[in-house]
Amino acid sequence: MSRKAVLLSARMATMSEGDTPYGLCQDAAIAVDGAKIVWVGEHQDLPPEYTDWPVEDFGERLITPALIDAHTHVVFGGNRAAEFEMRLNGASYEDIARAGGGILSTVNATRSASAKTLLADALTRVDALIAEGVSTLEVKSGYGLDSVTELKMLRVARRIGETRPIRVKTSFLGAHAVPPDYAECPDDYIRDVCIPTLRVAYVEGLVDAVDGFCEGIAFNPAQIALVFDVAQELGLPVKLHAEQLSNLGGAQLAASYGALSADHIEYLDAGGVSAMAKAGTTAVLLPGAFYTLRETQVPPVDLLRQHHVPMALATDCNPGSSPLTSLLLTMNMGCTLFRLTPEEALAGTTRNAARALGIKDAGSIAPGQRADLAIWNVTHPAELAYRVGFNPLHKRLFGGIE
Amino acid sequence: MSRKAVLLSARMATMSEGDTPYGLCQDAAIAVDGAKIVWVGEHQDLPPEYTDWPVEDFGERLITPALIDAHTHVVFGGNRAAEFEMRLNGASYEDIARAGGGILSTVNATRSASAKTLLADALTRVDALIAEGVSTLEVKSGYGLDSVTELKMLRVARRIGETRPIRVKTSFLGAHAVPPDYAECPDDYIRDVCIPTLRVAYVEGLVDAVDGFCEGIAFNPAQIALVFDVAQELGLPVKLHAEQLSNLGGAQLAASYGALSADHIEYLDAGGVSAMAKAGTTAVLLPGAFYTLRETQVPPVDLLRQHHVPMALATDCNPGSSPLTSLLLTMNMGCTLFRLTPEEALAGTTRNAARALGIKDAGSIAPGQRADLAIWNVTHPAELAYRVGFNPLHKRLFGGIE
Repeated sequence: MSRKAVLLSARMATMSEGDTPYGLCQDAAIAVDGAKIVWVGEHQDLPPEYTDWPVEDFGERLITPALIDAHTHVVFGGNRAAEFEMRLNGASYEDIARAGGGILSTVNATRSASAKTLLADALTRVDALIAEGVSTLEVKSGYGLDSVTELKMLRVARRIGETRPIRVKTSFLGAHAVPPDYAECPDDYIRDVCIPTLRVAYVEGLVDAVDGFCEGIAFNPAQIALVFDVAQELGLPVKLHAEQLSNLGGAQLAASYGALSADHIEYLDAGGVSAMAKAGTTAVLLPGAFYTLRETQVPPVDLLRQHHVPMALATDCNPGSSPLTSLLLTMNMGCTLFRLTPEEALAGTTRNAARALGIKDAGSIAPGQRADLAIWNVTHPAELAYRVGFNPLHKRLFGGIE
Repeated sequence: MSRKAVLLSARMATMSEGDTPYGLCQDAAIAVDGAKIVWVGEHQDLPPEYTDWPVEDFGERLITPALIDAHTHVVFGGNRAAEFEMRLNGASYEDIARAGGGILSTVNATRSASAKTLLADALTRVDALIAEGVSTLEVKSGYGLDSVTELKMLRVARRIGETRPIRVKTSFLGAHAVPPDYAECPDDYIRDVCIPTLRVAYVEGLVDAVDGFCEGIAFNPAQIALVFDVAQELGLPVKLHAEQLSNLGGAQLAASYGALSADHIEYLDAGGVSAMAKAGTTAVLLPGAFYTLRETQVPPVDLLRQHHVPMALATDCNPGSSPLTSLLLTMNMGCTLFRLTPEEALAGTTRNAARALGIKDAGSIAPGQRADLAIWNVTHPAELAYRVGFNPLHKRLFGGIE
């Protein structure tokens, strides 16, 4: 579109960094030229060059940046409802594994699904996020654990961004789990499957960042480092699932590669926080997984605040540990379970979520930013995190277009 | 409507009591005559008298009874987002009370709101529930604590059922909190305000059941008994907020009046469970309040199972302790937080929710029941509780009508 417009609203949360909570502005005006914001401020200060542009008045509603979901696994085959039910009927993890459950059931379902089915299934989840004002979505591979399927997942992720009005950032997550045929030799998997697949995916233009799962049940720091070395060689940014269930020093490792983010981090210690602060690494908190897994160890939010580590919040949408497709509910969980403030929760799904993805032109309302905006039927931004399971979205603009 | 139709679907969860989990039936047919179900079974067994009725085929989708939310406070003025934010910024309960927060802020906002505003606000929440397949809704008074406002709330509750295709059951909850002007003499409030208001509301036909809040911060058992005596005199069933924060023997009291339900019951003991079982009282579990208040004491689910006390699940939608408008999320919380099985969760929002409201013609799919049905884009009923913040509803029928 090349339309020019001035958007008016009684209140706007720019989420720009500064002294005002939420970057709040009353009687606000936003001048939009095509996909970009060109001017932001109080309506009475609107410069003369914009005064004859068409006006769209949102009345008493609140305008915020559109939301950004910085950590998802929305592309996968099947679901894990049967496993969910087995566990609640008393089945042990062994019982479930014997019945073909766990992450490997998703790997099998993803391997056997066509790209068309994977896309159609993912779009049901993506549409739920879009309906809540999400404009940018990170999508990971990692349920293939073989070259063909990892590439298939990344192509489906790219297709999401071509099929729906949403920006997709892909992360290559070949180092997500050890496939059964490499159970005795995970190093071989990293060397023979994961890294060669990363190189192919990179050449195809399918990779925006490189991710890994650093944990006892996945890969150790040395194995992750092998993957990160290749990312560095290719000039790709890295991020890491770190310190979710134990402290292996994953966040420090990620920080040493200048990682965009370290994600989960329930078991992060002061050394890890300090390393993230120095590297400018964003903490991506995932309360949906914490809730679903009934964890009790919360991320070190106070330490992150003290060290000024930016905090993002994301759904972690995945079929096993977080079958969650609501970023608004994630904000509520961030407050209720992790004691974030509502302002931190909104920063975590706008400004800081953009940082976690290395995006500079979205996440706040400011001149030069994309006109990715959400208009809400609420009067105060704290209401976005306060309600549970309610969607007050009035309208979403993606690059200025409805 | 007087249409006759045969609904077909690959799978149906009748939720009738019996040996089959979920009352599951494959290749199902439901014959609907007007607002009623007249026949249910496998399609191949459809009797000849129905075979020439118009057919609606839902293909691979799942049909269940429409959902029932058996405990809500959806009529209220204002919201408590500011208080939510204050608390997360470190304010104490005293700070919040001094700033006019807490339940009394909702009482003030409800007293000063017009019936029109109360209705419009409530409908935003009711519409969210309807969009998830809810067909029956309990609505309480209790934010007036004076005669005028309690009656206003109940009239608004009745208006909901006239304005939207949903059945509303009202509960008079004058004994919800002690209003400030009666802080020193709660007995006077019960005698001079609560009971006279109940009598007026009864005469106006505004009361389907009588409720109370039996707790240290509200009313003691003797005060509740005064209200229940009047309910009994008027022939109204009772229910009670009991054992939420402590054990005052509220459930036993309620059972002694043959209560429809005892609600919350985190602190319920074996004696209370046994009394409920003998009285046929349903346990209404409210995980949204448990989650929002970050409680740690879970209801005695195993004891309730052992004594065959039916368990319902409800949103408890209210502005303070459970600003929750998703009954599907409530089902997930029932499983995740209280370890119900997905089948118990669905029984809790269908068959047992009907019991908690004294409703005999809804909550399962059987001949003679209302054609209140939900058709879902899922293949197994466990999926309804498994996902978090996702709505797979395809279509809801209310008395046979879309």
